[in-house]
Amino acid sequence: MGTAKPFLRSPCAIANSLDIVGDKWSLLVVRDLLHGKRTYGELAKSPERIPTNILAERLKRLAAAGIIASTPYQEHPLRHQYTLTRKGAELGSVLLAFVRWGKDHIPGTVALSQSPATSRIPPKKNRSRARRAE
Amino acid sequence: MGTAKPFLRSPCAIANSLDIVGDKWSLLVVRDLLHGKRTYGELAKSPERIPTNILAERLKRLAAAGIIASTPYQEHPLRHQYTLTRKGAELGSVLLAFVRWGKDHIPGTVALSQSPATSRIPPKKNRSRARRAE
Repeated sequence: MGTAKPFLRSPCAIANSLDIVGDKWSLLVVRDLLHGKRTYGELAKSPERIPTNILAERLKRLAAAGIIASTPYQEHPLRHQYTLTRKGAELGSVLLAFVRWGKDHIPGTVALSQSPATSRIPPKKNRSRARRAE
Repeated sequence: MGTAKPFLRSPCAIANSLDIVGDKWSLLVVRDLLHGKRTYGELAKSPERIPTNILAERLKRLAAAGIIASTPYQEHPLRHQYTLTRKGAELGSVLLAFVRWGKDHIPGTVALSQSPATSRIPPKKNRSRARRAE
């Protein structure tokens, strides 16, 4: 293609994924967004109590990597809400693999939500219909 | 069970998995062991060129977490070979999810081995036979 991307460490798909989300917090933010959290305040209140400076930095990094999108929902003071892009939502399969591995091998751990894929809260008016369709 | 384990951050299976392998290097060591690498020297030669101090520290941490086992294969000087435990080998599903996500969303990335499960390098004397069999 003539536009070879200079990889940070190697062209390995795993290594490059880890360059984006290979830390203790990024995938927890993705988990929370998959679970329907939207605001900085909601994300900061997760049980792991992510330090707010780390949360702010991770949100910037995840947005720069195209994993989340932020849109203003309030102007004075300015507040954003965060949603996963398709790229970000598809990290759900990585999270699911971690949930299974953790539950199998780390005694006492649980899936905070039984199924990230089905835990999105649909808009209220569709909720009963969505349930009926299942 | 009466022996509740105090979790570092929360009982979330994802958070606790990330407390063990949530960094840029640990899963690359697991990848390499799945691919048949066994010695410190082989692991150090991976394309990402893990710094040797980090490799030594990660091997200790992964052994302490029950993900790898080390056995001496030479006495003077003492050298160890490393293998994945069942707990470690089952991180293969996490790696596979990362490979798929990376290939789908990070242009130009590849699976370093098409199939971790079949990529173990056979002993030299069998290598040509193994190639012919493919």
